[in-house]
Amino acid sequence: MNNIVNGSVTSPAGFTAVAVPAGLKKEDQLDLAFVVSERDCACAAVFTTNQVVAAPVIVDRETLAMNNTAVRAIVANAKNANACTGEPGLVNARETQRLTAVALGIRPDQVLLLSTGVIGVQLPMDKIRAGVETAGEILQHKEAKEQREERGREAARAIMTTDTRPKHLAVAVELPGGGLVTIGGMAKGAGMIHPNIATMLAVITTDARIAPDMLQTMLGTAVHHSFNRISVDGDTSTNDTVLLLANGASGTAVADEQSYTLFTEALTFVCTELAKMIVKDGEGATKFVEIQVTGAATDAEAHTIANTIATSPLVKTAFAGSDPNWGRILAAAGRAGIPFDQNQTSLWIGIPSAERLQLVAQGTPTDYQEVDAAHVFAQPEFQVKLQVGMGMGTAVVWTCDLSHEYVSINADYRT
Amino acid sequence: MNNIVNGSVTSPAGFTAVAVPAGLKKEDQLDLAFVVSERDCACAAVFTTNQVVAAPVIVDRETLAMNNTAVRAIVANAKNANACTGEPGLVNARETQRLTAVALGIRPDQVLLLSTGVIGVQLPMDKIRAGVETAGEILQHKEAKEQREERGREAARAIMTTDTRPKHLAVAVELPGGGLVTIGGMAKGAGMIHPNIATMLAVITTDARIAPDMLQTMLGTAVHHSFNRISVDGDTSTNDTVLLLANGASGTAVADEQSYTLFTEALTFVCTELAKMIVKDGEGATKFVEIQVTGAATDAEAHTIANTIATSPLVKTAFAGSDPNWGRILAAAGRAGIPFDQNQTSLWIGIPSAERLQLVAQGTPTDYQEVDAAHVFAQPEFQVKLQVGMGMGTAVVWTCDLSHEYVSINADYRT
Repeated sequence: MNNIVNGSVTSPAGFTAVAVPAGLKKEDQLDLAFVVSERDCACAAVFTTNQVVAAPVIVDRETLAMNNTAVRAIVANAKNANACTGEPGLVNARETQRLTAVALGIRPDQVLLLSTGVIGVQLPMDKIRAGVETAGEILQHKEAKEQREERGREAARAIMTTDTRPKHLAVAVELPGGGLVTIGGMAKGAGMIHPNIATMLAVITTDARIAPDMLQTMLGTAVHHSFNRISVDGDTSTNDTVLLLANGASGTAVADEQSYTLFTEALTFVCTELAKMIVKDGEGATKFVEIQVTGAATDAEAHTIANTIATSPLVKTAFAGSDPNWGRILAAAGRAGIPFDQNQTSLWIGIPSAERLQLVAQGTPTDYQEVDAAHVFAQPEFQVKLQVGMGMGTAVVWTCDLSHEYVSINADYRT
Repeated sequence: MNNIVNGSVTSPAGFTAVAVPAGLKKEDQLDLAFVVSERDCACAAVFTTNQVVAAPVIVDRETLAMNNTAVRAIVANAKNANACTGEPGLVNARETQRLTAVALGIRPDQVLLLSTGVIGVQLPMDKIRAGVETAGEILQHKEAKEQREERGREAARAIMTTDTRPKHLAVAVELPGGGLVTIGGMAKGAGMIHPNIATMLAVITTDARIAPDMLQTMLGTAVHHSFNRISVDGDTSTNDTVLLLANGASGTAVADEQSYTLFTEALTFVCTELAKMIVKDGEGATKFVEIQVTGAATDAEAHTIANTIATSPLVKTAFAGSDPNWGRILAAAGRAGIPFDQNQTSLWIGIPSAERLQLVAQGTPTDYQEVDAAHVFAQPEFQVKLQVGMGMGTAVVWTCDLSHEYVSINADYRT
């Protein structure tokens, strides 16, 4: 598996993209984008589990129920989520789908929608209409390869909201039969406590040929180990969506077990890298922290404990303040709703280049040196490992710190 | 029921208190306190549900299992929670209990412990020992009534950590037979997201005579409608404790049903006022918001939805920014894990003196004026009411805003 320098959703063969300033953001910033395939795509999707679901999610679900074998395009807009907009919002979403189909000369049921931004405000359809028409016109001109690559990166820029940088990558994978397939991806995230409350959108493209059912299974696996590791289970926004398009343009099919495994690994890698980019670009984030929980009764229980630690404001402010106030980590674990014996817990912290430092052994603080613990917490990236002594369940989640003014109250609590 | 001006735990007959600077906090601030009854007390208690439990909680549970009919004193310290301190922490807690018993000439099993502060650090026992001795000596001198009242307020000051003001009150209640009983209380709270992660301690005293079992039932009811309304169910710190002492010094017993009801109402009032004081003194709080959820299938489901709204950082920053970005309220409700139909939801906001403003009707935004919504969100106290259209379940919780730098990123998201 090889990383493609500056790769994106347009790195796989047969995909192009375009981004335009439709006037949703200020000052001519890119805010509306198409990702388009020249051939029909198999499509897999993972949507928010929120009870309140945005109009584009409703329309995408309906569309994919009718057609998940011949998808041709995605239209994405930033600045307006088209959520909590009632029947008018649904009408606007369907109109956006129809307009895009007309602009690209395809059927409406070949177009999927992504929206992110403010909730409860109707889409400005005049701007959407003009933006879609402009994007369609641009795509009618044949483009050079370099142009196509640049447009993939521009699409990643168009879906940004409070993100400070676009998030995209691509990898090439050689499958057992010698065929080379490419997987590209882009995402937007941000929001202090990540996808659980701020919208997370991701588009993954590949030129491999894969049947829709298999594609859906692969995406489920990849999302479970990536985007769901930066989110509290079930705590998603009204718009969270991951779409995966496979157009087969490479001529290589993923059908046998070995290819399946290799491709799923590569897909998981792409999703994991995008997920980590989202954490690192968390609003105000200055630290990237891996939370590893071991010794839980099940993986799911480990995940719940890890998530509770990863989303605790008091833990996150301690990270920000470089204050190894590890009691907050144990206190967060203890309120996760998972039974364990505090006298069996052990805690380590660490950075990649050095041995882990043990802070707690069997429920009692070790005689570690405060300066050593503070050194770890001062790094831009570090790991926290909690062993709860109940079984073999493990989980890893990624989180960031909670910085700024809230810190001035909480991070200095011990001094 | 009458409020007692400047009342506290020493307002009921037969209770006194003392607070000293034991050197746990800086600059001679009060940090160690006794609440003492001249007679044996029936005692009820509610403790944290965290899996990780501080040493004083373990010792209190053990003590009350042996003796809940002849409790005489509570010793409380700030600045150190004695949590995650293993076996040495338990030894120190028991030693604190023993030292207090010696200082007061009572048995160790008549003393209960409260600790709040940093986790994972052993109690400085030399300071505790000296503080307990000093407090004991002060109590050997007979005190005037005014002194006793002042000492109750000082005890409330001694248990403060990041609290900006002491929290105490007392009420007098006339029972059906003509007997007058008094209920006093003090609490400490703070921590941005309230008792769910910052320690909440409360001591309630009364001179009514009440059997321990009945006292426990009354406290359970009162806590359910007060302290648990500012907390996520089960999300408590390692030290959260509410203690209720009844010494019977008024000579009036609570035994019949009518007295039971009246007393429980008064007790709930005291606990609710203390709970609201905690919210209003939340770290950095500038707004006090009541979240009311109606139309859930059950009260418990309404409570879960209300708590999810009340603890959502995005909702709380919208409060702080006086930005009626109500989509965040619906999005938070939708991720509470409780099924409802977004097309049946309605949302109102309001202040006590005016008619409620409806923002959403049956899932669709109303044509309300933005300036009217902004006016409500600009008030220091307001109400949010969400109807989810599933049944008759209701719940009320109280929360505050999330202010400062986090706001500068999130509160202006729509502008």
